[in-house]
Amino acid sequence: MGEFELIRQYFMPLARLHGSRSVLLGPGDDCAIQSIPPGSDLVFSIDTLVEGVHFPIGYRPDFLGWRALAVATSDLAAMGAEPACFTLALTLPEVDEPWLRGFARGLGRAAESFGLVLAGGDTTRGPLALSLQVHGLVEQGLAIRRAGASVGDLVVVSGTLGDAGAALDYLDALSPSEDEQCVLEQYHHPQPRLKLGIALRGLATAAIDVSDGLLADLNHILESSGVGANIVRAQVPVSLALARLKGDAAVDYALNSGDDYELCATIPEATWATAPEALKQHFTVVGAIEPAPGLRLDGIDVASGSEATGFDHFRRRA
Amino acid sequence: MGEFELIRQYFMPLARLHGSRSVLLGPGDDCAIQSIPPGSDLVFSIDTLVEGVHFPIGYRPDFLGWRALAVATSDLAAMGAEPACFTLALTLPEVDEPWLRGFARGLGRAAESFGLVLAGGDTTRGPLALSLQVHGLVEQGLAIRRAGASVGDLVVVSGTLGDAGAALDYLDALSPSEDEQCVLEQYHHPQPRLKLGIALRGLATAAIDVSDGLLADLNHILESSGVGANIVRAQVPVSLALARLKGDAAVDYALNSGDDYELCATIPEATWATAPEALKQHFTVVGAIEPAPGLRLDGIDVASGSEATGFDHFRRRA
Repeated sequence: MGEFELIRQYFMPLARLHGSRSVLLGPGDDCAIQSIPPGSDLVFSIDTLVEGVHFPIGYRPDFLGWRALAVATSDLAAMGAEPACFTLALTLPEVDEPWLRGFARGLGRAAESFGLVLAGGDTTRGPLALSLQVHGLVEQGLAIRRAGASVGDLVVVSGTLGDAGAALDYLDALSPSEDEQCVLEQYHHPQPRLKLGIALRGLATAAIDVSDGLLADLNHILESSGVGANIVRAQVPVSLALARLKGDAAVDYALNSGDDYELCATIPEATWATAPEALKQHFTVVGAIEPAPGLRLDGIDVASGSEATGFDHFRRRA
Repeated sequence: MGEFELIRQYFMPLARLHGSRSVLLGPGDDCAIQSIPPGSDLVFSIDTLVEGVHFPIGYRPDFLGWRALAVATSDLAAMGAEPACFTLALTLPEVDEPWLRGFARGLGRAAESFGLVLAGGDTTRGPLALSLQVHGLVEQGLAIRRAGASVGDLVVVSGTLGDAGAALDYLDALSPSEDEQCVLEQYHHPQPRLKLGIALRGLATAAIDVSDGLLADLNHILESSGVGANIVRAQVPVSLALARLKGDAAVDYALNSGDDYELCATIPEATWATAPEALKQHFTVVGAIEPAPGLRLDGIDVASGSEATGFDHFRRRA
């Protein structure tokens, strides 16, 4: 089977999902065409996943399809954007139909769940890797950037952190325990916090998704905003499963391991006080923005720059 | 040097080039933001280049930077779009500063030449590969698609074809002849036909860029439009250098080899007759659209489908 037939068979159905109506022309031409509603800006991000670096060699293709789109879509959530469409650049060592079928199934489920249609792509031969670009829409001027954090803002995070990082310890487990299964599920099927991101518009002064670990990602906000922060270790939320599996070390996973795809945001204290309970219940206050540059954990400096912590693709071995 | 520092040093200058003013937020946040002027649609395409498949192992990094952006931008030309910005997903086996410097230089020259600013990207560790997504703007409804060719339209191509394909024979030449240098230059520094694409808006009924060979790419137009075509072999334009290097076989390169990045378009005969000479001088009429499906060369069937000819990444060995 040739490249073109392969693309048609497995990926064209993803271009017909119900979701965004802004895609005027999908895959199969030189370019795709997207209509941007008046009053909205286009918000977009590209992410690459390489086998053996961002996911294990031999990783289940349906899990990979979900994970790849979730990772990319999480960046839309962090901006408070509405999901619209995505492109897929897929590099494969060979035409493996069962693999493609599984991958397209996982990718399709994620696309439907997140409200994204496939707008275009490219398929090439080479070592297994994927680049996905996601497109979202946001009312002009309302996208949440990294640069708006102010002294006195609270630092909040959604959900719990550390499960996905801990899951790396159990990827090869033949019969994982219930707790191990819980954290593995967070690794295999991360949920981009699209609704929470949209709900943060107009409330949060800055936001980022936690892909590289809370300390590393919060550092990006601090550097962009020209401020510092203190995090209270005891307030960092971890799941019961992680706490049972890792004991006192659970919080270290929450602080330093990546792949969680929760949101970290900064919110003025007064705004937080009057925010709807329906929103607040999804977030935990973990610290506060301070004038002194740098990031502190219980008052002690933990990082001098964005490279001191978290996931750096050129430093870590898969 | 870590990933973040590396990105800043070599790629941030490309985000500050004079060009599109539609990028409201460039690299360094979770997403980039692009403003789309009222009355315009977004036109976009993603392309991947893998070392050893789309470019030779050890290829000069500055040539690669130019080629990669030219290949992607050529898709904007084929739609008649104005260039705006691009994203770069770069996968590198290691941090190699001289390589990065060269690559960023070639990419930057291409970006400036084509009028594109870097809006965002991702840098990862792995086998050398690049995915670039280019964004263009086109007046609503005026993008040139593949599906509009009609019986009686002329088939035209810009420039000359086959040089880049023939260049593959001389990539390792230690002291290439003048003619060999000519075709090599077409391979190393292709020129996306942006101005010609824009000039074709409202004139061409369909267009495509010649990336996989004239026969293969014209076949895409025919299949999308539900028509056939006949090409007159003697009218296919080849450069003097190619004709001298390859003799009678020069036209075979023009018909079947890829990487030319010229435009192939269909135009109603009456439109062509009254088209400005300034436009016509850049194109050659090579054939005509016919009602019978399929592609013919001097009246003889040459291909039964898009996979019978041209560059198919899963069939060809680099």
